[in-house]
This record gives sequence, C-alpha cells and structure tokens, in this order.
Amino acid sequence: MSYEHILYDVEDQILTITLNRPDNLNAFTRIMRDELIDAFDKADNDDDVRAIIITGAGRAFCAGADLGKGTETFDYKARGEVNDGEVHRDGGGRVTLRMYQSKKPIIGAINGPAVGIGATMTLPMDIRLASEKARIGFVFSRRGIVMEACSSWFLPRLVGISQAAEWVYSGRIFPADEAKEGGLVKAVYPHDDLLPAARSLAKELIADSAPVSVALCRQMMWRMMGADHPMEAHKVDSRGIQMMGQSPDVAEGINSFLEKRPAKFTMRPSTDMPDFYPWWDEPEFK
Amino acid sequence: MSYEHILYDVEDQILTITLNRPDNLNAFTRIMRDELIDAFDKADNDDDVRAIIITGAGRAFCAGADLGKGTETFDYKARGEVNDGEVHRDGGGRVTLRMYQSKKPIIGAINGPAVGIGATMTLPMDIRLASEKARIGFVFSRRGIVMEACSSWFLPRLVGISQAAEWVYSGRIFPADEAKEGGLVKAVYPHDDLLPAARSLAKELIADSAPVSVALCRQMMWRMMGADHPMEAHKVDSRGIQMMGQSPDVAEGINSFLEKRPAKFTMRPSTDMPDFYPWWDEPEFK
Amino acid sequence: MSYEHILYDVEDQILTITLNRPDNLNAFTRIMRDELIDAFDKADNDDDVRAIIITGAGRAFCAGADLGKGTETFDYKARGEVNDGEVHRDGGGRVTLRMYQSKKPIIGAINGPAVGIGATMTLPMDIRLASEKARIGFVFSRRGIVMEACSSWFLPRLVGISQAAEWVYSGRIFPADEAKEGGLVKAVYPHDDLLPAARSLAKELIADSAPVSVALCRQMMWRMMGADHPMEAHKVDSRGIQMMGQSPDVAEGINSFLEKRPAKFTMRPSTDMPDFYPWWDEPEFK
Repeated sequence: MSYEHILYDVEDQILTITLNRPDNLNAFTRIMRDELIDAFDKADNDDDVRAIIITGAGRAFCAGADLGKGTETFDYKARGEVNDGEVHRDGGGRVTLRMYQSKKPIIGAINGPAVGIGATMTLPMDIRLASEKARIGFVFSRRGIVMEACSSWFLPRLVGISQAAEWVYSGRIFPADEAKEGGLVKAVYPHDDLLPAARSLAKELIADSAPVSVALCRQMMWRMMGADHPMEAHKVDSRGIQMMGQSPDVAEGINSFLEKRPAKFTMRPSTDMPDFYPWWDEPEFK
Repeated sequence: MSYEHILYDVEDQILTITLNRPDNLNAFTRIMRDELIDAFDKADNDDDVRAIIITGAGRAFCAGADLGKGTETFDYKARGEVNDGEVHRDGGGRVTLRMYQSKKPIIGAINGPAVGIGATMTLPMDIRLASEKARIGFVFSRRGIVMEACSSWFLPRLVGISQAAEWVYSGRIFPADEAKEGGLVKAVYPHDDLLPAARSLAKELIADSAPVSVALCRQMMWRMMGADHPMEAHKVDSRGIQMMGQSPDVAEGINSFLEKRPAKFTMRPSTDMPDFYPWWDEPEFK
Repeated sequence: MSYEHILYDVEDQILTITLNRPDNLNAFTRIMRDELIDAFDKADNDDDVRAIIITGAGRAFCAGADLGKGTETFDYKARGEVNDGEVHRDGGGRVTLRMYQSKKPIIGAINGPAVGIGATMTLPMDIRLASEKARIGFVFSRRGIVMEACSSWFLPRLVGISQAAEWVYSGRIFPADEAKEGGLVKAVYPHDDLLPAARSLAKELIADSAPVSVALCRQMMWRMMGADHPMEAHKVDSRGIQMMGQSPDVAEGINSFLEKRPAKFTMRPSTDMPDFYPWWDEPEFK
C-alpha cells in the first residue's frame, strides 16, 4: 500500500493505520480523507485484517483540519469547489460514516492532541484508549463553526448529552484523565504503553471469535442504536440465527465447545456474509 | 401453576420465576421459552403480582441454549422446523419482547453463570443484581452465531456501545465485578445475600406506589427509548394526566399526601388501565 | 421584566431565572408555566443572554405541582378546562419542550427539594448541579399519576433505563449524592457554593465560544438524539460547515487562532442563524 498521508500496516491480523503528517501534527487533509476511506475499503475486503487500530505519527494524534488555507479552509465557494445550490459534503463525515460501516472492530489509540476532526473521527471507533499525553478538544464553538463528522449524533450516545454539552459549548481542550472520567476513553496509559495496550485489546477481540460473527454483531449493534423498537433486532436476529445455524462456523463453534478445544473458524467476511447482509438501505446524502 | 422447566412462586406480591433445570445449568429450552412467555402473561393479569424476580435454581443462572442436539441446535432446517422461504423466529427474542411488554417491574437476580441467552434474557429486565459467583458472557462470536434475543438493541442502550463492543466481539466470559463496573448490574452481593437483596429492592419498588401508575410508567419509559422526539412523550403524558387525573388513584394519592398518611391505591392493572393504553401498535414480525 | 412567579435577571451575559414562590416551596403554577415559556422566548431573542441558570428562591427548588386545588389538581374536566373529546396539554411538557428548543445553554442549580415537575423540568437542561440540601423525587407513582414533562423520553437518556426505573417505580425521594452517583447531576456543592459554581460553569461555556455556533451545536445534539442514522447529522453538518465557512465568525475563529489572540465573534443568534436553521419541522401536538 502506498499512501501519502497515512500508513497502512498489517501484522498478526491487526491493521494499524497511522495518521502520518507528523510535521503538521497530522492535520487532516483531503488526501488523508480519501486515503482513510480507501483503507477501510481495503480492510473490509482483506480477510487477513481482523481488527483495526488508528493512531498518529509523532507527538500528535490529529490536530484537526489543516488551516494552511486560512479563512478559506471551510469556504468551499471561495475555493471554487461548489457551484451555487450545491452542498459540499463534510469530509470528516464521509470518513466517520465509512468507519460506521466497517466489518472490523476499530480501536482508537489517541497518542497525543486530538482536536476538531482529530477528536470527532474517533467517535465511530468501537473503543478509544489514550496516552497520558492525549489532549482532546471539540473546539468548534471556538472557531465559529459547527460540529462535524456526525459528531452531534455520536458524541451524546457515547458520553451522554450533559457531558457532550459541556465539552462542545465551551470548546475547551481537556486532558486524558477527564476523557476517561467522562466516558470517552476506556483507559489511559503511560505513553509508551499505549500501542502495546491497543494491540493487546485487539488480540483479545479476535483471539477466539469468528470473523463473520464479529462483522455481523458490529453492524447489528451500531445499526440498532438507531432502531425504534427491539422488533427490528428480532427480525435480524432470527434471520442471522437461521442462516448461520446451518453454517460451518456454527458447527465448528458448537463442536469445539463440546470438545473443549479452540475453534478454527473458516468463514470469511469478504465472501461469506449471509444473504440477508446488508439488511438495511444506506441512506443517501441529499 | 405447574411448569416443567421453571418455577412460579408468588409471595408478598412478588413473583419469583426460577429457571429450573439445575442438572443442566438451567440451559434454555423451547419448553422454558414457552413457559416464560406464559408466566409473563399470567403475571400481567394477576393483580397480586406487583413485581417479578427472575433467578436460577442451583449453581447457575442459565448456561445458554441447550446444546444437546449438537450442531443441529440452531439448524432449524435440519430439524425439519422451517419450510423453504420461512424464517424461524428466534426463541430468545420472543421471550425478551414479552418481557419488554410487561406491566410489572422485573429484577434479574443473577446467581451464577449467565451465558448466551442466559445473559441476553436479562437485558429487558429493569434492574439486574448479581451474586459474587455470577459470570456473564455474550459468547456469540465464539460459537460462530449472531447476537440474539434483541440484545443488539438492548445491550448498547444499557452499557454503551464501547463496553458492548468489547464484550460481544471477544465473546469473553467476565466476572460480576466487571459487570457492575461496566454498568450491566446495579450491585454485587455475597451469594447468600442476593435473593434477599432482590426481594428488598422489589419491596421498595412496590411499597408506596400505585400499580397502574407503575405499569404506565414502565411502558412509557421503555417505549420512549425508541421515540425520535420528546413530543411523542408529551402526547402520552397529556392523555395520561388527563385520564388518571379524574381517577380514584390520583384522588387517593393527593389526599394521602395532604393528610400525611400512606396511600391505599385501588386501581388494578388487569382491568383499570386507561382507554389510551396501549397507545402503540406492536410491530409485527416479518 | 415583571413576572409574578419567577425572577428574570441578566448579569455578565448570564440569565438567572429564579422560581419565586418561596412561601410555597416554589410549587409549579400555570402562571409559572406561562412565565417560564415567555422567559425562554425572551432569552432566545436577547443576544445579551449567552447562558441560562435556573434555580429556586428560598429553601426549595420546586416542590412540584401546586396541590392547592386538592383532588382537582389534575382533573381538567372538573375544573371546566377541557371539553369532551379534547386533550389538555400537560403544562410541564410545554415548558420542557420549550427548553429543548432553546438556543442558549441551560444549567440547573438545584438548591433544595425538587419533586415532580420540580425534578422533571430539569431534564432538558444541559447540565444539572446540586446543593447538598437538594432532594429529588420522581414521585408520580406515589400520587397515582403518570410521568410528565416528557420525562419518560428524557430521563432514561440521561441516567439509563435501570436507574430511571428504580427512581420512577418506587417514587422515592433521594439525596443529592445519589443523584450524582446515578448520573443525574454533574456535581454536588456545599449549599452556599452552588450558585457561584453554576455561574462559573456558565462563564466557562461562553467565555471563548461563538454564540451562533453554540446555538447550532445545542440543537444539533438534542435533535440528533432522536435521529436513526448518523447520515442525518451529516446532512446538517455539511450545510453548517458550508454556510458558516463563509461567515465572519469562522474568519475570526481561524484568524484569532492563527494569531494566538482571543476571538471576538460578531454574529448574533437573534438575527444571524444560517438559512437552513431550523432544519426540522417541529412535530405538532395531537
């Protein structure tokens, strides 16, 4: 893989994506946006990738939008990128919506400052870990802009509306401990322990689990967060149990359990998702 | 009541349902499924039942689906139970949807291992307590199957998507303390204190409260978890206050308060639910 | 401003609304209902109001509905206020729906007993702080009535369904510490420190933030709590970034950041909300 603004490394079935503009505190660019989306596409189709870690090169996780164009940063009209009547799709949102659709678990390893899109891009990840050196800010109100990357949808669901309100209205930058206290990150580590902890967690998630099951469960949980009634889950559960119930993975899951031995699952997310997947119509941007 | 796989005991207006296959760690069967649904039907129509405790006989709460049929456990086609083109409804989901509809508060008293459907059946209960001996696992990914019993809808709402993701992707079995830490159970007790604590909590819920009010509040809260806008609650609130406002229970509630004496509520959930109840159309399985 | 049952004071860009019937423990009246709604209308149109604190005069926050009319309190028919076939709109809900729509952050400073509508009116506030003397009760089940003020929608979203269930079914009055433990209030203060703490928090929310950004972010977060899919946020985000991206506030936000100086934002919530606001149709009562 040759990317310009990110690194893509697979080892022990764990993909590590590194935001890689260390001289610019990994500030978010359109290239980074497109490469992240491409990396998730690749990961979903690569059965050797079982889990994904996202971290930053150098001392920052991601300092937010690259402000190199100054006041034209968010002025798509001045930049000649939209015609009258057109709406420019928020780049951060395109990335977080892609993460939301991921078949693979995603762990954020927040190694340093994570501000603006650097903070909001972590919200559709399944679990966030932080270095003691992490500092996080939802700074939109301090730039006169609005929440982006679908963070108004994600953040209150992760930390509750009251904690979200405090962080977002003030735009204040806060330390890793406060992020843990507020429910945004699962744990805070001495800086050098962060990536080993993220890898260890990733290994735990994949060690004994069936990849197709994990892919289905991930989409079931994220999608059901928006469902009005548990009946929506019941419809998917029933199809899932019926179709997987006839599958080699379930046979292996049950046999290995009864024989008290590790399971060897053979079904592949790239090719063996059941017929009813996806069970949703992805809504269109308009 | 004579059931085969559960016990049904009412004492002091508290129904205790005991999963009762102790020689099989109370593994879930179709008989248990049907008996649980029947027990909730009976409880809703029995005004002497004010609250419900669910626990397990012997050393387990419920070890999950009975795997006595081996790899045919979830293979409804091999078992000749579905025709081509039919979908077999998940049995766990039929039970949890019935609990969701309950007029009476439900307390889970998790006395030992609670795995698979043994864990997910506790999610539509209002409050979960655990023995120090409880061990809980959402083990679907280790069996190659999917989440069931509508747990993809319930679990992230109870513990947040990040904690749910960690438990579900790994399929790991975890101890009672971790369940408390993660927000799944309210409190952990020395083993012999669990049932007394559950009864004490049940008594607190019913001691001074009006049964019809509790039934309405239970459905209002669970249903509003899926409502897009607080206006949906306002519509129900307004009808509820208007109709109950003319009722003997409100007269007694206000008079007893003004006279500083205990209230004696007379309205009965079996017969005195207000006209607008239910205000929803239960969605159909399809 | 001359109100009868509330006080309305603006100082340092912070509006303090004081429930002001201290001889009646600030019990809720129709006058109070109408004055609260009016006060929020005024606040939204007054650019000198950047944040709102709500507290109570004397020793209570709000003791709930005024029961001076005894058993006719909630009997709108006996009071001749509804015709047959009409539904009387819950007054508490009219207030909480108005708070929900507020452009300004709202902080509850619960200085003493907060019971019934005194408790539920705090739920659409963004953050709640409490005095050590606060005592809170969702006492509906003890009066034979139902949850009101849309609290069945708000409360489980703030504290989780299990904690909500325990408080609501029992109708029990609980102390400030339990409110903090349960996630209902952010912090508990010695009584005399409560209002200074609320003011300090309000100042933090407004010190460095752009008023139009805060107004947009507030509505984005509260509205997205009811949205099925993050795409709904993406649609609003994209419009918000595009339109604000051409605005003087964003120019100032970026320039002040690059020049490492405090920002001076000039856009006003009363007149400068972007064209796409509001992006929703407020649902009607019916």
